[in-house]
Amino acid sequence: MNFLDRKKRAAAAAKAAGVNALLVTHLPDVRYLCGFTGSNAALVLAGGRAVLFTDGRYTAQAKAEARGTRVVIAKKPALTAACEWLEAAKVRRCGFDAEHTTVAALDGMRKAVSGKLRRGMFQPTKPLIAAMREVKDADEIARIRKAAALGCRLFDGMLEFLEPGMTEMAVAAELEHRARLAGAEAMSFETIVASGMRSSMPHGHATMTKLPKQGFVTLDFGVVLAGYMSDMTRTVHLGKARAGEREVYDAVLEAQEAAVARVAPGVVTAEIDEAARSILRRAKLARYFSHSTGHGVGLEIHEGPRLAAKQTQKLEEGMVITIEPGVYMPGRFGVRIEDMVLVTSKGGEVLTPSVKAWIEL
Amino acid sequence: MNFLDRKKRAAAAAKAAGVNALLVTHLPDVRYLCGFTGSNAALVLAGGRAVLFTDGRYTAQAKAEARGTRVVIAKKPALTAACEWLEAAKVRRCGFDAEHTTVAALDGMRKAVSGKLRRGMFQPTKPLIAAMREVKDADEIARIRKAAALGCRLFDGMLEFLEPGMTEMAVAAELEHRARLAGAEAMSFETIVASGMRSSMPHGHATMTKLPKQGFVTLDFGVVLAGYMSDMTRTVHLGKARAGEREVYDAVLEAQEAAVARVAPGVVTAEIDEAARSILRRAKLARYFSHSTGHGVGLEIHEGPRLAAKQTQKLEEGMVITIEPGVYMPGRFGVRIEDMVLVTSKGGEVLTPSVKAWIEL
Repeated sequence: MNFLDRKKRAAAAAKAAGVNALLVTHLPDVRYLCGFTGSNAALVLAGGRAVLFTDGRYTAQAKAEARGTRVVIAKKPALTAACEWLEAAKVRRCGFDAEHTTVAALDGMRKAVSGKLRRGMFQPTKPLIAAMREVKDADEIARIRKAAALGCRLFDGMLEFLEPGMTEMAVAAELEHRARLAGAEAMSFETIVASGMRSSMPHGHATMTKLPKQGFVTLDFGVVLAGYMSDMTRTVHLGKARAGEREVYDAVLEAQEAAVARVAPGVVTAEIDEAARSILRRAKLARYFSHSTGHGVGLEIHEGPRLAAKQTQKLEEGMVITIEPGVYMPGRFGVRIEDMVLVTSKGGEVLTPSVKAWIEL
Repeated sequence: MNFLDRKKRAAAAAKAAGVNALLVTHLPDVRYLCGFTGSNAALVLAGGRAVLFTDGRYTAQAKAEARGTRVVIAKKPALTAACEWLEAAKVRRCGFDAEHTTVAALDGMRKAVSGKLRRGMFQPTKPLIAAMREVKDADEIARIRKAAALGCRLFDGMLEFLEPGMTEMAVAAELEHRARLAGAEAMSFETIVASGMRSSMPHGHATMTKLPKQGFVTLDFGVVLAGYMSDMTRTVHLGKARAGEREVYDAVLEAQEAAVARVAPGVVTAEIDEAARSILRRAKLARYFSHSTGHGVGLEIHEGPRLAAKQTQKLEEGMVITIEPGVYMPGRFGVRIEDMVLVTSKGGEVLTPSVKAWIEL
């Protein structure tokens, strides 16, 4: 990971935003800029310098992880120590990310500096680091590829494990156990196993419900490898399809593939959303598609860009996004199909190639 | 869960804090007050009314979970819809939790109401709901007991599983698999398995490091059951103890037990911390005890009260806290022992009775 380059680009983004220093406290941003993975950190970028403030629990870890960044083990809260350092370094305008700084934290930052500085010293900015993180560099793409590939191997393996009568919880337990044994640090989010009528809940976490003899099972899960996350969904069918099920599945699949096919640099994200939505509209299913089409993925499970109606952002080469339309028919069933897609110079490369055609187990 | 009573007490706390309404967005607080577990919510308490704002993904779930609370499925962001409702309801002073509201969110709240109201409508308050949540009611204690008991069963079972040569990751995988099969919704936090020299890292998440033939293994983990979390740590020894290891273990155990023995309503939390720290000081190990002695646990893994030096808060009956002193000798080894303790009218009841005496496997 080229932390030096990232820190330089962050400093340039700060300058463009009208501040000559940046106080970074959102932990994924800190990790992105200097490599530190601890749970308590404040990173200051000012005048070509980078200083990481953390506490005594992380003395060894911070020095090992944040090579190239000065580490200060503070007795005071890291944020207070960072603000005092800024004042001592005569920084007079420091940006902070308004979306990741609480009202109480800002109050504490202001109180940490002299009265005369309080008013103008800390300037809210947009999430500058989050914006940088939307476009992945080669090191990040390599890690995301590995996480996505592990997700696919796990899904493929689960096809032989799924059987009517086992609980959703047992499915999640097996999947997560295999993920761990394969080296995953964690799951990206609480595993979704939604079977039978529960597949109509977009966010149906695994319960003690038993898989039906005849009906859908939606698996939506991800793994974390070297800090980077995967995210994929497949919906398979146990037993023979009932009336209408296959039609809904095929419509969702067509919508998903149409959206994937639209991915390319320069395409507005709302167009990707519309590519999926228009197909479901034609099938008279659009009102059952109650969420947006996708989101960026990386160090966090939900990053920019958002793929939704009215979004004006354009895709850029190096972004990694999900494409995940779904149809949820209350009291009946639901279907969602989700891939991770890398935006390349030529279009979109699917990072989760597990089969999407109708599967009947 | 008596949500009606909780909402009433929250309204009273708001009134005492000088506001006649409360806007609650921190998700564990929302769950505590009305039962809703979705990932997008804004709860308004105003003039005896409670209204939950969320989105279309949660239509069925919100109505099922938040019985007794009016549910509004908003097309706009939930927070915006809540603010517009407040204005329409002629609320003129609404409190918000400054520790869980970002600067950007506050800006959005202000923009959601008419210009003339912007200045004075939203008033920062202390974390009123977090303060209520520190003292657990009978329903919560029952759930926490179950989570803690499951944690103990899992630890006891792992004693027969641990063997030199297996990776820390394999230990974590097995533990988490068993937790899932036993019905845990999730782990409370990323499982810590720190073996050999890695036991000197207080936060050593499981890696591919192999358990040594001779050395410590620290297991620090928790499970989530019905929303409530457990948290416990044990440090066991593989093979025969080397010089100094047993002495450190015994000192940590003595410190831990001394702190547990001090637990009672009315005791200042700093005294609990000091009870542990003074014993380690006598053993000349205090400088290796680099964190605080404990914290509250409930719907979140870290809640109030904090058990640390200089804390002036007093324990109250119904609080559930951890007592977890540790000694970390850089480059050598570390030992931590942690229980969950319920503050009762008579003192402290340990909820995690797994053996703490020296274990040699």
